[in-house]
Amino acid sequence: MKQATLQFIGVLHGDITSREDAPRNFDVSERVGTLEIYPEYQDALEGISAGQTIVVLFWLHKSNRDSLKVYPRGDRSKGLRGVFATRSPMRPNPIGISELKVLAIHGNHVEVSGLDTLDGTPILDIKKKISR
Amino acid sequence: MKQATLQFIGVLHGDITSREDAPRNFDVSERVGTLEIYPEYQDALEGISAGQTIVVLFWLHKSNRDSLKVYPRGDRSKGLRGVFATRSPMRPNPIGISELKVLAIHGNHVEVSGLDTLDGTPILDIKKKISR
Repeated sequence: MKQATLQFIGVLHGDITSREDAPRNFDVSERVGTLEIYPEYQDALEGISAGQTIVVLFWLHKSNRDSLKVYPRGDRSKGLRGVFATRSPMRPNPIGISELKVLAIHGNHVEVSGLDTLDGTPILDIKKKISR
Repeated sequence: MKQATLQFIGVLHGDITSREDAPRNFDVSERVGTLEIYPEYQDALEGISAGQTIVVLFWLHKSNRDSLKVYPRGDRSKGLRGVFATRSPMRPNPIGISELKVLAIHGNHVEVSGLDTLDGTPILDIKKKISR
């Protein structure tokens, strides 16, 4: 088996509607929005609270999956680089990772800041943040 | 559309063969092993070098996907918690994130340390590490 199937657990609502308008990454973003978690997954949110930083995995559904090399940040002066050495949304499995601050939780809606992904992006997972 | 299909880009070779033997997370692990990236994706590694920390996404193929709540670290005294508030491998989309140190690269084989996942685990993605 060399494949697996993902189930979308929710969808992002935000005001970023084009790649040009998207911050380069979460680490330089203060953009806010809402994670709508589908009701069948709401129980899995228990224990998340305002003020926490969470790790959110998105399915970058508008990304090209066929590129193995990119110009980092679109800057051709640095030459092509392998996508695994970058944070480019273009990669064989276009999963984006954002570390977001929880502003509030209302039922199955989680208000967050730090967004770098487009309105309408499917959500795959949420995890507690840890670091070395 | 509420689903997407993942392509495995490689497989982990290591000496962790049971969940009991696995370190709790990458942040407390010094275990070493090799990421075998399938030849058709090797070009995407260009730009990764020894000494770097990389973010590796794994497909935790032995995990239960049906649990929405777990006892954190198997400790029942703390009560059940939603899986999205934890790092449990059990979750609707069992994607694991490990931050690993690159020890060496030989063609499509990347030697790493910091492993917390089982020998034979499929690899989904590699990213440059960034943090806020």
